[in-house]
Amino acid sequence: MDPARIVVLAGGVGGAKFVRGLRALVRRTASPAAITVVANTGDDLWLAGLRVTPDLDSLMYALAGVNDDVRGWGRAGESERVSAELAAYGVGWPWFTLGDLDIGTHIARTALLREGLPLSAVVERLSARWPLGVRLLPATDAEVETHVVTAEGELHFEEWWVRTRAALPALGFVQRGVESATAAPGVREAIAAADVVLLAPSNPVVSIGTILGIPGIREALRDTAAPVVGLSPVIGGSVVRGMADACLTAIGVETDAAAIARHYGARSAGGLLDGWLVDETDAAAVDPLRAAGIAARAVPLWMTDDDATAAMADAALRLARR
Amino acid sequence: MDPARIVVLAGGVGGAKFVRGLRALVRRTASPAAITVVANTGDDLWLAGLRVTPDLDSLMYALAGVNDDVRGWGRAGESERVSAELAAYGVGWPWFTLGDLDIGTHIARTALLREGLPLSAVVERLSARWPLGVRLLPATDAEVETHVVTAEGELHFEEWWVRTRAALPALGFVQRGVESATAAPGVREAIAAADVVLLAPSNPVVSIGTILGIPGIREALRDTAAPVVGLSPVIGGSVVRGMADACLTAIGVETDAAAIARHYGARSAGGLLDGWLVDETDAAAVDPLRAAGIAARAVPLWMTDDDATAAMADAALRLARR
Repeated sequence: MDPARIVVLAGGVGGAKFVRGLRALVRRTASPAAITVVANTGDDLWLAGLRVTPDLDSLMYALAGVNDDVRGWGRAGESERVSAELAAYGVGWPWFTLGDLDIGTHIARTALLREGLPLSAVVERLSARWPLGVRLLPATDAEVETHVVTAEGELHFEEWWVRTRAALPALGFVQRGVESATAAPGVREAIAAADVVLLAPSNPVVSIGTILGIPGIREALRDTAAPVVGLSPVIGGSVVRGMADACLTAIGVETDAAAIARHYGARSAGGLLDGWLVDETDAAAVDPLRAAGIAARAVPLWMTDDDATAAMADAALRLARR
Repeated sequence: MDPARIVVLAGGVGGAKFVRGLRALVRRTASPAAITVVANTGDDLWLAGLRVTPDLDSLMYALAGVNDDVRGWGRAGESERVSAELAAYGVGWPWFTLGDLDIGTHIARTALLREGLPLSAVVERLSARWPLGVRLLPATDAEVETHVVTAEGELHFEEWWVRTRAALPALGFVQRGVESATAAPGVREAIAAADVVLLAPSNPVVSIGTILGIPGIREALRDTAAPVVGLSPVIGGSVVRGMADACLTAIGVETDAAAIARHYGARSAGGLLDGWLVDETDAAAVDPLRAAGIAARAVPLWMTDDDATAAMADAALRLARR
């Protein structure tokens, strides 16, 4: 039986690529499946009075088909007239340029938040504009922002990532406000009712790790009857995109497919994973991981297009069925 | 002696045209003069979470030389990509389109207001971008918004003006929040220290009238040693721009240059005006107004270009010197 209810924990750009591939797979199988995406909100920030949610937007734009595939982030056909005005007035972060179409999203989101809607309801309102084919949920409605501990003090994750290009060594990560946060409505319920839970090949520290840090989500993953299968964002000791290596180093995890699986831990040993996909390059990791209680398999993990990514998603679902 | 300190009470588009002419006049006279513009803020509104200040922006853009002369409002070279996004998300007022460059101003303003700056400080910050040649002050830092009483209930002035094109009969005007408002820092002081106060040929009801409704401003005008001279926005019984006739009718004032002067009242009789300029078309009003204690004069009042407007300003200053 094909899984009818799939939950994916995902970060932004890589998570969006993966979910697109999964959606393509689901659309061409005989039995329909419902996909729920739980998105990282740790990168969210207030910028020039606007609430910006980078990962939710990467997911929404990519699933709507309006993302910029060439640049890899934001909307296709962007312009930056508003940002130029902000820079001229000296407002905002000059190194964090927002596109005009993107700013339309931020204004709409901020207006709805100011009206009192929780983020999850705002995401539902905004994403209703397009037939995304998935249910998109923020990990939490609370403002829990990832800050990076450096020798020069704490920086918002986006400042560290975009302004310093992660060049300032990270000593650790802090989820500001996480103590009082709860999972957004529907997140724990979706995990509990899932037939399979997938961890997208997103940053294990500041994307998946941040989602797992929201009180209640790790417990929901432990309690669900569904198998939990992850895909490695590291191939042959290198991150496929982004600067996850700088994040992994900060928390003492090697930039290595097997090391990340051990970091998540085997479910049988109180950890998270039932299964783990590594790239064929890392096939040597399969047997040791199996010995550690994680059903590992080596398959091609390059998300070169929706077809290749659908094959990855298919491999993850097959592994979950075992 | 030429006046060294000129204060102008002004609305948006018409007020901006007048102040440009006055600035041109002052720039070519031998003795320098400082111009302080007190702008109407009754049209201000929250729209899609952004604070929009139409009259202040009309003044700032026109004095900066970045306004759209052809369309008559907003920035030159505008685009409307952000507004199209807002409409697609169903956020905001679809009939109130904001340009992209203009939205840059609104985001910057809103960000500074959210940081806790009063509007007057925000205006100073934003207008510092250009050499305006005048000091621009909001009438008040408080949110005092003009609402229009109609048979269908109260509407924000901009909704009545832009959406209904003032076609829904106005039964009256309400300044919401005016009770607790005070004049912005510098307004009363500028009026007290002025050598002359001019009322721009702006809407007597919802521009000049709204400024006069802010507690303390009418008193400051009564108390100042400076002569107060106004220019008629009505020529030959018709408004030169906008829909002031609908506003005048609502408060029981005829759309007539002399009727507006009588509405402001002669200073000698407890009113506002020492002098009043009417267009040559309305020359017949001069003698009756003089008899009523208002030093009236008929001169061309068409603001066709900065030179024509400078001549109007010159006539107003000459009348004030008498």
